[in-house]
Order: sequence, then C-alpha cells, then structure tokens
Amino acid sequence: MAPEDQNTTLPIVRTVEDLSTIVADWRSGDARVGFVPTMGALHEGHLSLVDHAAGSADKVVVSIFVNPAQFAPGEDLDAYPRTEKTDAAALATRPADLIYAPNAREMYPDGYDLGVEVGGPSQGLETDFRPHFFRGVATVVTKLFLQVKPDIAVFGEKDYQQLLVVRKLTRDLGLPIEILAGATHREWDGLALSSRNAYLSEEERARAAQLYAALNDVAHRLADGEPIDKARDAGWQVLKGAGFKPIDYLEVRDADTLAPLTSLEGEVRILGAARMGTTRLIDNIALGI
Amino acid sequence: MAPEDQNTTLPIVRTVEDLSTIVADWRSGDARVGFVPTMGALHEGHLSLVDHAAGSADKVVVSIFVNPAQFAPGEDLDAYPRTEKTDAAALATRPADLIYAPNAREMYPDGYDLGVEVGGPSQGLETDFRPHFFRGVATVVTKLFLQVKPDIAVFGEKDYQQLLVVRKLTRDLGLPIEILAGATHREWDGLALSSRNAYLSEEERARAAQLYAALNDVAHRLADGEPIDKARDAGWQVLKGAGFKPIDYLEVRDADTLAPLTSLEGEVRILGAARMGTTRLIDNIALGI
Repeated sequence: MAPEDQNTTLPIVRTVEDLSTIVADWRSGDARVGFVPTMGALHEGHLSLVDHAAGSADKVVVSIFVNPAQFAPGEDLDAYPRTEKTDAAALATRPADLIYAPNAREMYPDGYDLGVEVGGPSQGLETDFRPHFFRGVATVVTKLFLQVKPDIAVFGEKDYQQLLVVRKLTRDLGLPIEILAGATHREWDGLALSSRNAYLSEEERARAAQLYAALNDVAHRLADGEPIDKARDAGWQVLKGAGFKPIDYLEVRDADTLAPLTSLEGEVRILGAARMGTTRLIDNIALGI
Repeated sequence: MAPEDQNTTLPIVRTVEDLSTIVADWRSGDARVGFVPTMGALHEGHLSLVDHAAGSADKVVVSIFVNPAQFAPGEDLDAYPRTEKTDAAALATRPADLIYAPNAREMYPDGYDLGVEVGGPSQGLETDFRPHFFRGVATVVTKLFLQVKPDIAVFGEKDYQQLLVVRKLTRDLGLPIEILAGATHREWDGLALSSRNAYLSEEERARAAQLYAALNDVAHRLADGEPIDKARDAGWQVLKGAGFKPIDYLEVRDADTLAPLTSLEGEVRILGAARMGTTRLIDNIALGI
C-alpha cells in the first residue's frame, strides 16, 4: 500500500473465508468486535452508527449488502442506490476497520431456500405493507451475524421495528451479541436521513419533513392529555395536508412490544410510514412525557 | 465422584452456559467436537450414531431434548417416552463425553417466537402429513448447533428426509459443521429401530416389519425393470395386506433432492410412512441397482 493511501482506504473482503480469517486474527488478540450492517448508500446516519460501534468495540466491521430477500417484486431493488466507492471513502474517515461486501452468491448460494421467521414485534406496521420484509431482514441478519460473529452490533432507531425484530432474533436464537441502538440523524428540518431520500424531487423533499412534524404533533397532543385516537387523527391530517399519499400507518405503540395501546403506560413509541410521490418514507419518535 | 462411578456415569449439563464452558475447554485443547442430537428413549440406532461420531471427533456431545416444536397438537408429545436415567446409563457404555439435556425453558424462553424454515427437501412426504414438523426440526437443530458448536454432527438415515433438511439448513446458514449419516439399525425381521416401536402391541409388532418388506419389494421390482408406478402400487398392496392404515406415502424419489422421478436416474431412495394401529412408522432404503 502506498503511504498516501494509508489513511484513505479500508480493506474490503467479499467472502466469508476472508472475513473469518481477519476476524479470527483480531479475536486472537482479544479484540472486541463491533458490527454495523448496511445496504450501502451511506449517509451520516450510518456513519454515526460506526462511531457508536467503535465506542463499544476495538474493531468495527461494516457490511454493505443490498439484500434481495427484503425487497418484494415491484419494490426498488434494482433502483436502490449502489455507491461502493463513495461508501468506502466515507468509511475511511471513520473508526471502521473492515468492509464486508459479499456478492449475492456468497450470501445465497445456488438453490438457497431458508428463511428465519420472527414473531412478536414483526407483526403489524411494516409487515402489513411489506409482508416479506422482516423474513428477509431476519434471514440476512442471522447469516451476517453467523459470518461476522460480532460481540456487539448497532442498528439505527430510524428503523425502529427492525431494531426490535433484530433484538428478538438475537435473543430467541441465543446469539451472544449485544444489540445497540443508534439515534436517528435528521436534516435541518427534521427529515430523517435515509438512502431513499435521494429519490425525492426538490418539491417533494420540501414537504417530506412533515412526517417528522406529524409524529411530533401526535406527541405534543398526547403530552397535553388528548386521547390516543384523537391525537393520531390530528397527525394523520398533518400528513394528508403535506400531500403524503397513501399514508400506510401512524400509530402509538408500546415501545418494547409494539403492541397497540389504549392508554399511555410504560415506554411509548409513535411510528409512521407514508408515501411522498413514489418514495416510501418511515420515521418514529419516542414519546417523552 | 466416587471411584466406582467413574465408568458408569457421564456428566449431564442443562444450561447453555455449562455446555459452553465445557466445550470451550475442549476446544482450547484443539479437540474436534462431535454431536448427536436425540429426543432420548435411546436404542441401538442412537447409540451407533455415538460410535459413528466418535470415529470422526475427539469429544462427543449427545443432546436429549423432546422438542415440543416438532409435535402438532394431538400428536404424541406427552406420551413420548422419557427415560433419562436409562439413556444416561446406556451412553456411559459408549464413547460419549457429555449429555446436554436442557429443559424447554432453556431452549424456548418466555415469549419465544422464532422459526427456521427450509425449503427444498422439506417439501412433500412427511410435510404432507406433518406440516409443522420440519420447521420444528430446523429450528431446534439450528439452536442446538449454535449452542454446541460442533465440528461434525451425526443424523440417522432412518429419518432420511430430516437428514437432507439438516444438510440443507447447515449449508444455507453457512454453518461450519459436517453432517454425517448413520445407517439404519433394524430388528431381526427388518423393522427399523425407533423409539415409537414401544407403542406397538405384540400383534402389531409382528406385522410392522412389512414396511421394510414393502420397500424391498418396490426395490426388487424396479431392479427387475418394472415401471415406477407399477412397482410402487405393488409395494402399496404389501402394506395394505399387512394391515397398515392409513398408508401416508410410499414413494420413489431422487436421493439428493427428494424430487419425484419418472425414470430411474442418479441415486434413488424409496421412502414410506404408514400407521400400524395408532403408531406411525417411517422407513426408507436406497435403491441399489
């Protein structure tokens, strides 16, 4: 490696074998291994998860894999942005130690036919609109966990239901991995960072932050003592007024189980999903009362 | 441990933690770990799998766990024989090093809700009659594999479809475990050893070996050039004549994929399942032409 490259490139491996060799070498030196799984198209939200992982681990693996199993036919698998060079350059500025970017054949060999199904928090919300989604997520996360064998893994709170599904999968499989949550990063107007924001037109982008505004409107109303249904309906009107269509859901749920709530008890999470033009956006916030 | 116990008892652990401590200690001494999962009620068929495992490993773990997830309501979960003391005594005479006998809570903690689904060889045959079965098997085998972390595991050919499902699960999850097949052990008259044979009355027991006879009848007819359908129908008549009712299936299949065959190509397996009285028996043989 030329000296001028030393601070600007990260090793990239594409096979489980190469990955295992490097991670085993780290482990032999008693390193604690952190893991941040991504589908690439990295933004500051992802990069902050790398910082988060490095806070609890000696070495950090970042995977980049656009997982076909979590896209349904007609969804944006082909259009999903693939920007590996830019991603690698961004990761080189952060405390990442290795990029694992397997090709689809490495993850799903010929004739592959296995799925991991998690109940509990996977029910409802996203599943009502993307019924295939969490089976695809649980399957690829299981495989990545078995390949990387990390001590900790960091998932973003932006995909809050996914975070709970991954926690459940880790617990139910008995994997010795601690799942950490990374806070959602937002634009100046509150729009949660997402690789899919790149699909928005300038005009759609201007209205997209109303998803976050709607979640906060529900939160303020609940804090003011409004009944859940009424607060939720008001938030729905905010989304409608901003031109979201269709609105998939806007829900007030138990933060641990995602069970529907009839009264505000325990930790509460407000979650929404809606389409702006052709782009489906999701977001969520904690209710802080 | 008193000296007189040293050759007659085996350590039994009931938690993943205790299991992991012992297996990690073995591994630190570079031992190769073999694994034989069972539901207890051990017979010579199981014990021969232990011998088989010891032939390819330095240390052998035998699990005893009657897995609720692979029984449907109305099946024989409650009646299934539980004979841990006898099992432990039998294993002490064989090259086993550790019994892992977790309780159900250790395998399926409160709120557990995760299933592993394998396609391919799990389709048809047993699945047509026990649709829940292979999800239950794949889930518990995945969990046991992650807990024991063996280098090799041995499964009996008597449950041939299960053997293929386990091979597929191991491959699709990318687990670094070699799956070995143990030959079926039989009584003097050909009846395959099975814990469920204990359910048979004396009179049923006398007729039960006709399942093996029917499989061989099909094999002989195929070897003589009879068409598959005709040979299969003749075998069906053998089962019917012996009083099996209902006959779930008697099939001639590709030995690697279990795909139905219209002509005899590649490795061929003949598989049958039928009920004798209230006892469901399964068996299979290779077609040796």
